[in-house]
Formats: sequence, C-alpha cells, structure tokens
Amino acid sequence: MKIALDVMGSDTAPATEVAGAIRAARELPVEILLVGKREAIEKSLAGYARRPRNLSIVHAPEVIGMEESPVASIRKKRDSSINVGVQLLKERAADAFVSAGNTGAVVSASTLLVGLLPGIERPGIAIVLPGVKGDTLLIDVGANIDPRPLHLVQYALMGEAYVRYVIGKARPTVGLLNVGEEATKGTDFTKETYGMLEASGLNFVGNVEGHDIFSGEVDVIVCDGFAGNVALKTAESLARAISVLLKRSLAMSPITRLGAWLARDAFVQLRKEVDYAEHGGAPLFGVDGISIIAHGASSSKAIKNAIRVAYESVRHELNRHMVEAVHVYTQHAQR
Amino acid sequence: MKIALDVMGSDTAPATEVAGAIRAARELPVEILLVGKREAIEKSLAGYARRPRNLSIVHAPEVIGMEESPVASIRKKRDSSINVGVQLLKERAADAFVSAGNTGAVVSASTLLVGLLPGIERPGIAIVLPGVKGDTLLIDVGANIDPRPLHLVQYALMGEAYVRYVIGKARPTVGLLNVGEEATKGTDFTKETYGMLEASGLNFVGNVEGHDIFSGEVDVIVCDGFAGNVALKTAESLARAISVLLKRSLAMSPITRLGAWLARDAFVQLRKEVDYAEHGGAPLFGVDGISIIAHGASSSKAIKNAIRVAYESVRHELNRHMVEAVHVYTQHAQR
Repeated sequence: MKIALDVMGSDTAPATEVAGAIRAARELPVEILLVGKREAIEKSLAGYARRPRNLSIVHAPEVIGMEESPVASIRKKRDSSINVGVQLLKERAADAFVSAGNTGAVVSASTLLVGLLPGIERPGIAIVLPGVKGDTLLIDVGANIDPRPLHLVQYALMGEAYVRYVIGKARPTVGLLNVGEEATKGTDFTKETYGMLEASGLNFVGNVEGHDIFSGEVDVIVCDGFAGNVALKTAESLARAISVLLKRSLAMSPITRLGAWLARDAFVQLRKEVDYAEHGGAPLFGVDGISIIAHGASSSKAIKNAIRVAYESVRHELNRHMVEAVHVYTQHAQR
Repeated sequence: MKIALDVMGSDTAPATEVAGAIRAARELPVEILLVGKREAIEKSLAGYARRPRNLSIVHAPEVIGMEESPVASIRKKRDSSINVGVQLLKERAADAFVSAGNTGAVVSASTLLVGLLPGIERPGIAIVLPGVKGDTLLIDVGANIDPRPLHLVQYALMGEAYVRYVIGKARPTVGLLNVGEEATKGTDFTKETYGMLEASGLNFVGNVEGHDIFSGEVDVIVCDGFAGNVALKTAESLARAISVLLKRSLAMSPITRLGAWLARDAFVQLRKEVDYAEHGGAPLFGVDGISIIAHGASSSKAIKNAIRVAYESVRHELNRHMVEAVHVYTQHAQR
C-alpha cells in the first residue's frame, strides 16, 4: 500500500510531517511518498540516523499557503505538493493522500482532479470527536456549507460505513444535528432531512443537539457544513480558552502551583483525551480515493495517526463499502 | 423598578429562584415579583429568617414544562408563571421579566403578548460568553433559526447598543459568524449580510469564525439562530466533557489527587470564569419590554445575576437605545 503525504502543509512543515512519516513508516506496512520540496525534505531527513526503507520522495516545488483561494491556487500552482499528491491518487500511484495544508485546496483538488465516487453528490469532511461515553463522527464540518437533504443522507450512509468498517462498531447510531429533539423542530431543510433519514434503513436515532457532540452517545452526527464548521471551531476555541484560563488560575498561588505540578500526569492524560488531533486526521468522504485532512497545528504524532487512518481506510476498503451503501439506498429510495 | 421573576422554571424551582431573588432584593433597589405557585413560594420563603420587604408574590397556578411545545403551551396554560409574568410586562406592572423556564415559551409569550419594539422584525436571544481577552455577546442563539440578512443587521444594532449602554464599552466591534474570514466566504445569506453590515455604520470587523467565539477579541458576533444554538450547546457540552474527563484523570493516583486538592482554589476560579451562567441570563432582544432568559440549570447566584442584567437593562434604557439605533439605520438605508 502506498500513501502520499503532503509534507509542506502544517505550521511546522516539513519537519513535523517528516517526523510523523518516519514514525508511521516504522509502525505500518506501507510505503510513504513524501511530497514536497526535495531539498527541504532531505534536510529534515538528515537529522535521522536511520531512514526507514519504506519512505521515498516525490518532488513538488510549489506550496499552497493556508490563506490562498482554494480553486485559484490549485489551478495556478500545478506543481504544488497538494496538486502533485492528489495527482498520485488520481493515477493510482498512491492509495491514499494525507495533507495538513489548506483544507479548501485539498477538498477542491480531490474533487476536481480525482472526482467523486459513483453515486455520491458532494464530498464531506468528517471528524472524530472524543466524548465522555465514546467517540462521535461529525459530518460535514465545512466542505459543503449549503447542502441539500440528500447530501446529508449520503453523509450518514458514508459515516455509518466508516464507523462500521474502519472503526469496527456494529450497527452505528446516526443523529441529525438540530436545535431540538422533536421531529417537528428546525428548518425546512432539517425537517426534510429528518424524513429521509427516518426512511433510510439506517439506525437513525432522530434529532440531536449541540449537547450531544461531546457526550459520545451517538456514533454519527450529520449536519450542514456551515453549522458543523462553526461547532468544530467553537469547540477548538473553547478548549484553548479553558486551557489558557486553567493555566492562569493554577498559577495564582504557590499552593496551587504545587498542586498543578503534582497533578501534571492528569493534565497530560486529559490533553490526550480531548485533543482530537491525536485521533488522526479528518477523512474527506466521497472522493474516489482516500484523502485525509490533518490539522495545520498537527504534531508528528497527529501526522502519524492521520497516516494510520488512511491505512485503515484503504485496508478496510472503505470506499467500496460507501459506494455499496449509497447504491442500496438509491435503489431502495427509487422503489 | 419592578422585576417579575418566574420562580417555576429552573431544574430546582422554586427554591433556587427564591434564593436568587432574596440575594437580588438585598443588593438591588428593585421590587421583585415572585411569579408562581403561592404555596410553593411561601414554603421556600419560610426557610429564611428575614424576608426582604421588596419581595412580593404573584400567584400563577400553572407551570409550563421544559419539553412542552412553546406556542401550544402558552395558549393552553394561560395561568402559567410564564404567561402571568409576561402579562405583567405587557401591562407595565413590571419593567422586566426573568425566567429560567422553557426558552421557546418565553420567546413566544414575549413576542405574542408584549410584541416587538417599533422597527424590529424578529426577536433574538443574546448571550454573553467569557473569553480569554474579554467577553463576547453572541446573537442569535435560537430564537430565529431561518433569518433574513436584515434580521442579523438588527441583531448587530441591538447588540451594539447593549454592549455600549449596559456593559459600558465605547464603540463595540461587530463580527459576522462565518466559515472563513474573507468577504467572499460563506453562503448567499452570509454574503448579503456582510454587505449590509459593511454599509451599516457599525464598527464592523468583517467575518469571524467559530474560533473567535471564545477568544474575546470581538464584542458582538451575529449569526443565524441555528448555527448560534449549535455553537452554544456544543460549547456547553465540551465544557461538561472536559470537566468530567479532568475529574477522571485527577483521580488517577494518590499524587494527582493530592495535587487536585492543593489546586482546588484554581478550579473554583476557573469554574467562575467559564460558567457563563454566572454572568447572568440571556437577554431576549427586540421585545417591547426587558425579558431575560436564565439557564434551566441556574444556581441562585445565576438567578441573582439575571435579575441584575434585567435591572441594568432597564436602568440604562436599553430598549430606547435599540429603537433609536434601528431607526437611524433604517433612515440611512432608505436614502
């Protein structure tokens, strides 16, 4: 199995990507193609005494910045690490592509160059969020900000396939993000989506609220990409604010500082649990090839975990299962 | 000044409301009308040795439950504490109304019975959220889930007036919640709203993202009630999840438990900072009378603070300022 890794995307590229790739190359039976500026990659690799054999370099001289317009940049910078990596996916020279770069550019390049899976109308970004009782997969968090109800039904089918085959949980539950639990709640859009999900054959548990995103009680939550993006970024922002405010209050006196020092293992443990970057990247569902988006602020461990998500997705034939699920639904809906 | 308090709304009603009312009655130069079941109120009051003179009871024999349909329940239960309290507002027998009960019922009753301020098209629920660099007022968090761009402009004008006159901050900044910072980002709805806000004369700083909700860098953030509701509930859910997970990890060993005990003052301090209930209730903007919605899980301190928010809003003639701001905008926009 070959996995192409854009090494130019993260805030600390390419050092973090290279470090993550080395860890992944040692742990997983895959070949990793490091896509980016050859010289910079060689420089990062030079710091390691032993370079794993299952690492190779694919030169890509250009870089798409985080602030660049997605569609314009992928048209203009044909030799960017994102374009070259996605091109490898298109030509089946790679089974999966992982990038911590410009999310919009990865979505556009994957959609425009590789295309969508048969029957899928829109791509969607999914993210695994840690909760009190377990993980929840939230789709879509920003690929499709003005979706139709059918798009959400397809996200539900794809998310269900992911949890079932990649995470390995039987009969995952699916919820629709809304402003209240009753079937009559929400906008015309959510009401129509509700009806379609109810008739879909999925294990649909009805409307869920923002409260449920971190409760871990529902396996898959679908929503429009606008609300999903806002929810995700709000959560990131709150987690950061709590961390800053906690540090500030733990520094208030010598006693609290001593307490914080004694309890430091607990904080490390908490960070591991709530830092969803540690859970690996966000899969871009619907593309005809596995594409994984990692956070721009990824650590090397997060990069390694994103590569693992790509590996597991390929190994479990995620896309075949997704196409099948959507095909069965479409046949059924037409009857 | 008279403030009507629905004492039947919170999860621990009426004890919590009565306790909060007693604290408010001692601190503020207001008369508080306790609206609810007389017998239950008398029973709660019996626990206090000295009853403040500026407390009185308005009997309301019915209660609207948290799960009841808002419009149906306010039509059916005319003698509910919410209906009776809102009726006091309508008749100007009270200057403000505070409730920790069914939010939808408070919004519907306030809108249908009291009506909206002249020129205001829709009510909006605002909430003050604590951030690293200061507080942010988010509007709307659920009163209007399918708004038109003008509604958001009116929320911005009302929110600006609130921060300026009630919180007392000169020239507050206003942002539009979106999925990216560039003016070209978002849906047709956000793009049209962006243009109108830019031309509004407000101190508009452009699009902001979910990241900015807890950064405290923008004073007022406007959004549709669907996204706002999801963001708020997601944040509540994450804060709760972090608290549960932190407790779990702090209990991991005798050392971390000792550390947690030594650092306990810091946790109390953090809870105060992040618990927005401590900041008082959420004002319902646009109603022709001050209406404040407190959280169902309010403490007596949160109830007291919600009464304080009502008091400050009346004292600073919030509604007059809001009507003026919307009037000036409308005149300007028509030219």
